[in-house]
This record gives sequence, C-alpha cells and structure tokens, in this order.
Amino acid sequence: MNKTSKFHPEPLYDVSNLGHVELNTPDLAASVRFFTEVYGLDLVTTQGDSAYLRAWGDHDLTSLKLTQARQAGAAHIGWRVMSPQALERRVAALKAYGVEGKWIDGDVGHGAAYSFIAPSGHRMEVYYEAEKYVPAADKKPYLPNQPQKFSGRGVAAARIDHINILTQDVVKTREFADQTMGFKLREHLIPGGQGEEVGAWMSLMNKAHDLAITKEPSPTASGRLHHLAYAVENREDVLRAADIFMENDVHIEFGPAKHSRTQGFFLYVYEPGGNRIEVFSGGIHIFTPDWEPVTWGTEVKGRSTAWGLGVPESFHKYATPDVQVPEATPAAKAAAMAALSE
Amino acid sequence: MNKTSKFHPEPLYDVSNLGHVELNTPDLAASVRFFTEVYGLDLVTTQGDSAYLRAWGDHDLTSLKLTQARQAGAAHIGWRVMSPQALERRVAALKAYGVEGKWIDGDVGHGAAYSFIAPSGHRMEVYYEAEKYVPAADKKPYLPNQPQKFSGRGVAAARIDHINILTQDVVKTREFADQTMGFKLREHLIPGGQGEEVGAWMSLMNKAHDLAITKEPSPTASGRLHHLAYAVENREDVLRAADIFMENDVHIEFGPAKHSRTQGFFLYVYEPGGNRIEVFSGGIHIFTPDWEPVTWGTEVKGRSTAWGLGVPESFHKYATPDVQVPEATPAAKAAAMAALSE
Amino acid sequence: MNKTSKFHPEPLYDVSNLGHVELNTPDLAASVRFFTEVYGLDLVTTQGDSAYLRAWGDHDLTSLKLTQARQAGAAHIGWRVMSPQALERRVAALKAYGVEGKWIDGDVGHGAAYSFIAPSGHRMEVYYEAEKYVPAADKKPYLPNQPQKFSGRGVAAARIDHINILTQDVVKTREFADQTMGFKLREHLIPGGQGEEVGAWMSLMNKAHDLAITKEPSPTASGRLHHLAYAVENREDVLRAADIFMENDVHIEFGPAKHSRTQGFFLYVYEPGGNRIEVFSGGIHIFTPDWEPVTWGTEVKGRSTAWGLGVPESFHKYATPDVQVPEATPAAKAAAMAALSE
Amino acid sequence: MNKTSKFHPEPLYDVSNLGHVELNTPDLAASVRFFTEVYGLDLVTTQGDSAYLRAWGDHDLTSLKLTQARQAGAAHIGWRVMSPQALERRVAALKAYGVEGKWIDGDVGHGAAYSFIAPSGHRMEVYYEAEKYVPAADKKPYLPNQPQKFSGRGVAAARIDHINILTQDVVKTREFADQTMGFKLREHLIPGGQGEEVGAWMSLMNKAHDLAITKEPSPTASGRLHHLAYAVENREDVLRAADIFMENDVHIEFGPAKHSRTQGFFLYVYEPGGNRIEVFSGGIHIFTPDWEPVTWGTEVKGRSTAWGLGVPESFHKYATPDVQVPEATPAAKAAAMAALSE
Repeated sequence: MNKTSKFHPEPLYDVSNLGHVELNTPDLAASVRFFTEVYGLDLVTTQGDSAYLRAWGDHDLTSLKLTQARQAGAAHIGWRVMSPQALERRVAALKAYGVEGKWIDGDVGHGAAYSFIAPSGHRMEVYYEAEKYVPAADKKPYLPNQPQKFSGRGVAAARIDHINILTQDVVKTREFADQTMGFKLREHLIPGGQGEEVGAWMSLMNKAHDLAITKEPSPTASGRLHHLAYAVENREDVLRAADIFMENDVHIEFGPAKHSRTQGFFLYVYEPGGNRIEVFSGGIHIFTPDWEPVTWGTEVKGRSTAWGLGVPESFHKYATPDVQVPEATPAAKAAAMAALSE
Repeated sequence: MNKTSKFHPEPLYDVSNLGHVELNTPDLAASVRFFTEVYGLDLVTTQGDSAYLRAWGDHDLTSLKLTQARQAGAAHIGWRVMSPQALERRVAALKAYGVEGKWIDGDVGHGAAYSFIAPSGHRMEVYYEAEKYVPAADKKPYLPNQPQKFSGRGVAAARIDHINILTQDVVKTREFADQTMGFKLREHLIPGGQGEEVGAWMSLMNKAHDLAITKEPSPTASGRLHHLAYAVENREDVLRAADIFMENDVHIEFGPAKHSRTQGFFLYVYEPGGNRIEVFSGGIHIFTPDWEPVTWGTEVKGRSTAWGLGVPESFHKYATPDVQVPEATPAAKAAAMAALSE
Repeated sequence: MNKTSKFHPEPLYDVSNLGHVELNTPDLAASVRFFTEVYGLDLVTTQGDSAYLRAWGDHDLTSLKLTQARQAGAAHIGWRVMSPQALERRVAALKAYGVEGKWIDGDVGHGAAYSFIAPSGHRMEVYYEAEKYVPAADKKPYLPNQPQKFSGRGVAAARIDHINILTQDVVKTREFADQTMGFKLREHLIPGGQGEEVGAWMSLMNKAHDLAITKEPSPTASGRLHHLAYAVENREDVLRAADIFMENDVHIEFGPAKHSRTQGFFLYVYEPGGNRIEVFSGGIHIFTPDWEPVTWGTEVKGRSTAWGLGVPESFHKYATPDVQVPEATPAAKAAAMAALSE
Repeated sequence: MNKTSKFHPEPLYDVSNLGHVELNTPDLAASVRFFTEVYGLDLVTTQGDSAYLRAWGDHDLTSLKLTQARQAGAAHIGWRVMSPQALERRVAALKAYGVEGKWIDGDVGHGAAYSFIAPSGHRMEVYYEAEKYVPAADKKPYLPNQPQKFSGRGVAAARIDHINILTQDVVKTREFADQTMGFKLREHLIPGGQGEEVGAWMSLMNKAHDLAITKEPSPTASGRLHHLAYAVENREDVLRAADIFMENDVHIEFGPAKHSRTQGFFLYVYEPGGNRIEVFSGGIHIFTPDWEPVTWGTEVKGRSTAWGLGVPESFHKYATPDVQVPEATPAAKAAAMAALSE
C-alpha cells in the first residue's frame, strides 16, 4: 500500500506539475531586468501591469508572471493537471473539502482555471489547457526534444521547479494539498520534544518536492511566500550562478550548499522586488511506490544542512510580503529555525 | 488530451519503476567483482547460481541479479507496480492482450510476480510486494532520506535507471509496452525516406526513459539485451567513472558524451560477462501532461549524438547473447546505425 | 639535476607565458563574431585590418589579434618574458643559435619585441613590455584579484593557454625551443619500431604544456598552425561549451574527451576563418624540479585518448593554412596519426 | 620589472614546491586511519613513531609525515628546491639573513636538508634530493604521465598543495620568505583604518599560493599551524568530499565555498589529531611576470568569502597546537577575523 496518503486508496496522479507562479513586485522594471539579464529567463510578453517570462527549458509558454504591486509576494500559484477529467475531479475534491473557488477564463499561456484560496491563505489555481511554447526561428533548439535553444545567458535557469509557502498550520495545509490535489508527503519536520510539525515537503511524481510548506514565523501573517525555485541541471551550474550573482551585485542570502531535507543543492538570493528566489539542482528521486515519509527532528546530529552550514536568521524570518516578525520566545524560535532550515 | 497514448483515455500510472534485472553471465565471479569493486554496487546475498546486488541509492533490497549461465544476456526484467490493485489491472491488461504469463512466488527481494514473455522475446515480470532495504549499522546513512551510506567505492553507481532491449518490431513492442503497462512514448526514430521505426524511448513518469526499444540487427535473434544502465547524479560522476574504468582495464566502448535522444550523458562499457553496461546521468525531464512524442529522422543535421561524436560499429552490432550478425545491406545498415545511436 | 634540458645547467625561467597570438582569417567579420559572441572573448579595439581581443581572465590587454588575410593560419606567436634582462638574454640566445631576427616597435598591447622565424617556419616574437588591462567601470570585477568581471557570455573562455604548431622536424624544433627560450620537454611521442619523434609537449613552468609541437603531415608545408587553445576552469565548462557550439552551429571536430598526453580535457572546433580552436581544461601539473620527460609509444595499450575515443582523420590532416595533404604511405600515416592524437 | 619583490632584481625560481609536511598528532592511529581511509592518501611506510603517506598524484615518495606527539601541530615544513646549486644559494641566503640552521641527513623520501626555524617560529627545511615514487605493479597508472593509479578511495586527495601558518608579524614573515626563499607576494590583507597587515598569500610559480601567512590570534603563541591543504582537480571533487566527510562523521568546519583571496574552492575539516585539513581546488593562476600584489581591506563590500558566506569563529581562533586564545579586544578581533578569512 502506498504509505504517503490516508486520503486516497491508491497514489493519485491528477496534478502534473507547478505550471506557473505570479509574483508581485514593487519594482516591476527592476524585477524584469533581474529575471531576464541575471537569472536568464526570457520575456514572453507584457500586458497591463504584468510581464510574462519563461525559462528555456519550460514546456509551456510562460512559467512566471511578474506584476507591479505595492508589496512583494506570491499573487497566485498555478498547478497544472493531467487531463480535462483530472481537472473535473480536482475541482470536485476542492468543493468537497469546502473550498469556495471560482472559474476564471485564463491568462496569457493558459485556459480556464479554477481559482481558490488554500487554507494557508495562498491563492492557487488548477487548470489543464495550456499553450505549448513554439520557438521562433532564432530560438529553435538544435535538439528537437528541447523546447528552446539554450541561451546560456546569466544563470540560465532551466525550468520552474518548486515553491515554498508559509502557513500557520503545516499539518492542515499539507493534508489539504494531499486530500484535494494528491500531493505526496515525502518528508516532514517535527522538532524533538515539541510535537508541532513545522515543515513538510511534498511532491507530485518523482521529484523530492514540488511544494514545501513551512511554519509562518509571524503569528498573524497569512499567504506569504518563502521562496520560488527554478532548477538547473548540475551542481556546477549553481556554483556558476553564485559567481554571476556576485558580479551583478545580487544579494546572496544562503548557499551554495546542500539541504538535508530534499538533498537539493541550493542558492538563495533576493530579486529586486524583494522575493526570495532559489537556484536549485538535484534532490532525491522518488521512484518507489511505497515511500514512507521521513520524519526529521532537530536531534538529527544538529545539522540543518547536510554539510553543517548554519542557516542565516533572515532565512527564518524574512518572507514576502514583508511583515514585522515579533521577537519569538526561545522555544518558538528554535522550532521556527528548525522548520525553515529545509 | 494526453498525446502519448492511443490506448488509455488518461495517462496511466500503474507501473512505478524498473525494479530489478537479472543478467546472465558466463563468469559469475568476474561479473560480481566488476559490479562490486569497479561499478560500486554492494553484494546483498548469493543463492544457488545467483548473486544479488544493490546500488547505494536503490530503495529496494536488490536491483540486480547475476546468474551463472552459458551466455550473457538479460534473463528477466522486473517492473514494479504502484499498488496491489495496479498489479491486478496490469495482469488483466496483459491477459487481454493475449500474453500467456504465470504467477511465480517471488525471489530475493520481492514477492509474487506475474512473469511473461513480451512480444520482443524478453522475459519480464510485474510485481508489487518488494522488500525495502534496511541498512545495517555500518551502512546507515547520515541523512535519513537516503537508503544507505554513500560508499564512494569505484564508480559508485547510484541507482538502477533504465534498460535498452532489442526487437524485430519496434512499433509492436512499444505499443505492447504502452497498452499493457502504460509506458509513455517520449521519442522515436524513423529514418527519413524509409518509414520503418527503428527506435523508441519510453518512460513511466518524469524521466526521459525507463525503457528503450531498438531494432535488432540480427534478422533472427530475439530477446536480446542492448544495455542496462544505472544512474549517477552529475556529469562529473560520469567523467570520474571513465577514469576508474580506464585504471581498471575495463573496455570503454562509447562515451562519455551526450545523446541526442534523451540528452543523457552516457558511458558504455562491457562487464566481464559480456553485457553492455551504462553509466548514465541527466536526461530531459518530462513534467508536462501533453508531451508529444518527438520524431527523429537521420536528417537531423546528421548527428547521432548531440555533439557529433560518431557511434562505434560495435554499438550497432553487439548485444547479448552474442550472435553472429550477418553483413547488412547498405540500406538496412544505415537504418540500424541510426536506430541504435540513441 | 633537472632532467628536462641538456642545454641549461639549471632550469631556466626567462620566458613567462604565451602572451598573444595573431591569427589570419579570410573572413574577419565572421571570426570576430565567433570569438566574441560564441567563444566569449571581448573585442578590445580594431586597427587597420586587425581586431584585438581578450579573454576575461587575461592579465594583459589583449591575447588575440585577428587579421584579415587570404588564408587562415598563425601569423605570429608572442612569448612574454620575465624581465628586461631576460629579454636581453633570450635575444642573445636566439642570435647564438643563428636566428636572424629583427626588433619591432610593438603593437596594440605590448612594446618592443624581437621577431624571428623559428626553424619550424613559424614567426614568433619575445617581448617584455606589455600593457596591463584596466577595466572600465562596467567591467570591474567584484573580486580585485581578477582582471575583469566574469561575463559568462557564450563559452566564456577564460585565458589564453597554449598553441600547437606543426613542424617537419619535431626534435629540432623542440630543441630550439628549449635551447633558446627554456621550454621544458614534458612528454614526447616516438611510435614504437619507428624511431621518429612525432610529437613533443613543452611547458614553461607548472603547466602540462604551453607549446605543443607535432609532425607536419604535408611533406612540404611549413609554419602551419594545428590549434590555439584558451582555458576554462572546470571540465563542466568544457561540456557547457559543447552545448553552446552545438546551438550555434559551430562544427565540433573532436571531444569533449580527455587526452592521454597532458591529460587535458579538450574540445576542438573550427572558427569561421578555418583555424582550429580548442577549449581546454585541466592537464597535469608539474611541480617537481626533476620531471623526466615521458616517452609515449603507440603501443601504450593502443589508446590515443585516455578513455579510448578515436581521433578523427581531419585532426591528423587538417591545419591552417590548408594545403592538400597527399595520401600518406601506411607507415607514415600511422606515425602521423599517433603523433597528432596528443 | 617584477613588482612582487624588493629583494631580488629578477624573479627568483630557486624553490620549487612544498615537498612535505610533518604533522604531530596525539592519536597517530586515528590520524592514519583518517588520512588513508577518508582523505584517500596511501600509507608508504612507518618508522618509529611516525607514518609516511602520499597522495596518488604526488611525484615524490611521500608528502606527509604523521608523528605521535603530545600535541597536534606542524613539526616541520619541507620546501624542495630546484637544483643542488639552488640549495646552496638558499642556504647562503638564509645564513645571510641571520638564520641559525643545521644540516640533517634526510628522512624517508629525501636526502640532506638544511633545517631552520623561521622568524614565525616554524621549523622548516630546504632540500633538493628526493626519492621519486615508483609504483608497484598494482599501483601502476594506465597513463604513464601520472605517478600512480587513481584509487578513487574516499576524498582521493590528489597532491599536496599549500600550508597556512600563523605568525605574530605577517610582514616580517613574508619578507623573510621572499628574501631567503623567493616566495612571491600575490595578495595581502590590511584592514582599513588600521594599518596592520594581517594576512599574506605567497606563491613560488603559477599558483595562487603555496604559503599563506596569517596573524596569530594568541598574543604569545609561536609556530602554530592554521591548516594544511591537498588539492583535488575539480570543484565537484570538493562537493563529493563534503559528502564523504559527512558520511564518516568528520567535523566540517567551513565550506565548501569560494575564498575571496586566492579564489580557491575550499572545505576545512579537523583530522582526529586536531589539525585543520583542507580540500582545495582551483585558485587564480598567475602567469604574468608583473603581477602586482593585491591589497585587500575589510571594506571590500564586507565579504570575507566570494559569495558572502560568513567565517566561523573557530576559523579565527583555533589552530594547532591548541592554546587558550584570550578574548580579544574588539578592534583586534575584527583584524584577526578579517585576516583569517582568506
């Protein structure tokens, strides 16, 4: 029996992948410049107050929408499903859960979507119809099994990979993701002698995670973004990215190093709008049908990262939109720190 | 609609992964020595004329069974399914297809399996129950989300990845794999001006391929193995493997280089028993639900590999068990060469 | 005693490094485009029929001069010396050897140089005064121990590394290089049962080679270029370069793979003017004062490259300027092939 | 003119390389086990209370002597010179400087050496005669331009690279190294608004450093070792080393990350005897004859490492032999921290 879900009799594969994310930014021009010139995405089009971008390895037309707003943050998160039937089933499951969603007509790059607010306060949507990217002549790849010519510009982020959201109630949010969309719990963090689960890493198919859910450090905030990650193919690409960020005066917050959870090789920076962006490579592969979620406690030899690198305090406290995070009690602080060290 | 199958109304995820392969070898002792000391697997146990091995990153107890035999080749290929229900469904589909299989009690590392001969002549089995590897104290990994301590011995092959079989009829074999087990066609090769499909690359979930099916160069042979591949995590690991093979007098046939199909970074050697073994890294990732199979023709700028490296003739002709492959007609030869250049 | 020279009582360190090379090209515009946009050099300036370029890691202002000419080839090779006194000594040694040189005033990037024709027919020069590169504000590196900001453009070739010239008489040419300039013989190739030395690899200080000298395949040609190489820092950069060449329709002749001689990780392409250009990484390091030249014969397990990759015939025959190379006798052919497989 | 020395009219190349280091250890057996099984060196022989080891890429017989002692630390540091004449010249220079040395007969792996105590309190020796390593049959490399078969065991440290010593007076120590042995100053650190030089990086030929000299944090200690480093060829080897240290419960103090000074990619651990040991890769290459020493101040955008990773306090305070380092004044502390962040 598949051990990762109590909600489904068999593993559920109705949701396919993280399709796109909309990030708010108080400085759209600077954010677009960062994502295109330094991070290496392509600008697909602009419309109203938004710019649509894509990575060279994204299958669909666009994976990132940047929108001018008062504050940074994740405006919405788009999960693509497997088929029209899967979309119907997921909408039914959301309604059965009690979620009050609405259908929207779509946006640049995708069709009708069912938009809803998750218990964590994040706006999400599920959709099936999406526009496949068709390269113009100068973007045509040499190898036809790749959507677009490799540009090699800047970090050359290859494809959208995962998102990390904050929530007041990790268990509730991950059970929601499992029950309504079929996210599989791969690992979670329950600091020893405390009992509260403060982090959960979930994936849809073979990856270590498509969705990370960690404890919100502010007692009142809701719907905040911890980080959005694009993947690159090799660890060397992450090291190269660090040099490129360094040369372009981009603030490196954390990494390159190796996570304990997911074992991903990571590098976190802030884009000019303030959102935390990751360059990610690797991570464990989950091929077995009976993966048992790994439960981590802080007692695991005291290491927050695989090789012992400490987690900077900002990584525990800062998220978008930015709010004043009150000084935590020592116990709460330890829990939050453990939770966010992924 | 999912474009990759005409046999299923929706993508089918009943088969989970390549669970294990049994290779025949005329020199069991030498093969075991190669796979443990050079390739870096661990010997799990021996029983009768067989040795059972595992890679440090394999979830299940064993992924490779080596059996003393008169000739090299793949004795059987084990596909693990998602659940007991999925097993029932797949057996029903096999029977509906007309396959005459039989239930076997299991083997070291797995339980009851439905064993059958595929139209390509290969013995395969589907099974659900498998024994999870539990490390002894000295094999316990530092990070609990990994089955076993990383040994770093030799090539340190990380996990079983894919198998390439030969068949007289590529289309029939891939349609069988799709219809009965839900393999998804990702890429295929139909040399221009010829019309015969000579290669197909199929996967179960996000990988570029779990099963490669290429045209048998011998007009009469059946059930032959082209190669078995284990994965490593980075391209540097493949380059390092080349040095280790070189220092240990292992015959390197092809690579390291990058395939056009799958884009995998590859290295092929012969183990002492004669079977072709690959060290594989990377490959395209398929996250989209509407992947359209890529059709390759030899006219694609004439390159059999991504960077132009030519394919050695042995790669087109040699397989296990070894048979005399008659000199092909020039036309057939061109087709076979294109087919096998993956 | 230092074993590498019979000409000097002690190791001689008067010549410092390969300072610059002038390449002729029949299509200056296309060559400049290749070297800047694909290979990743910067254009420093143009003057007359020449363009001056530099790599981001070159200490001096310019390391490559491209000159419009009827035929491709190496117009001259500039060796920088250690000091004004070293320059005097080297000029004296050249004159003592019988070389008829002349002083020239200098060129963009360097001062007075003593220009001469080596016995191999190549125009060379030795010089001390050179202009150090001073980056403009937008090229200023983050780390001040690096000459210029890392651009990451294209292949991002990091610095000029070595040159491979062809000669009718390898022994004579390498003894000249040793006797007059202090090049140290590191490795040479004398195919078994033949006795003729057909390749020599020489370096100035710690590198595997700054100068490679191999047997000219044409019985009459003189002063030809086999290839010019720039270095990158890691093998991954060479693999990345292969993708970039592939996407930009640059003809890849050979590699990526690992040489036996020098152990360098290599990749050879043709620039649009026809010259063979290498992307090089690694290579053995020579720190010991008593390195004994390694003598290679073809019998070394028959491998021309470390991992067994065969050498393409063009690598044996093609050089710039291009001449018709007559069909060699089988014996001569074998020797030439062995010689050029480096 | 060569800008790196006021003591020599021309660049001096009499000292060739760091030949060997003797480390004291209070637990010889554990240290030997670490250096062989984890770090990947080979045990050459034992004699008395000492064990002699070598890396697979070392040219000479042995590069590390481990000696049972009450306290960890560097017992002596051996610099190999270029020739017998160079040895005479260096001994003369040492005597002219006022150093009181003595000739010793030699040790396993090398002949007569002139042993002396540097102004920093470290015992050093210069020597020319050394025993070249000759591999037994099972250690014979496939490629004859390499001293020994690549084992791939553990970290597989490739060759001795550099040493970092502590001194009360950085300027005095580096001027001594330059004046008597010809070490070239490549970079030094003089924290802004303070004036005291607290770090100097010096090399013999093309490397970023063979000798690092940093400020002793204890006001009274003398002759202490900060770290000894062996090199590996690629950054991936350093990342791999981190996994191997992790799996073998070796304390990782710092890294993997990239230094600002030298730009080396580093990883520091403690061997069981307590000495800090580095795995090092890369570093800038110095080919130009007129390198001007780079002067660093702490004001360089506040980064102690290239990508912003903070330096752990132990890296500033801990050295061998271990002494109680008194709490520094804030100003002295800042200086020491800057100095040691390399």
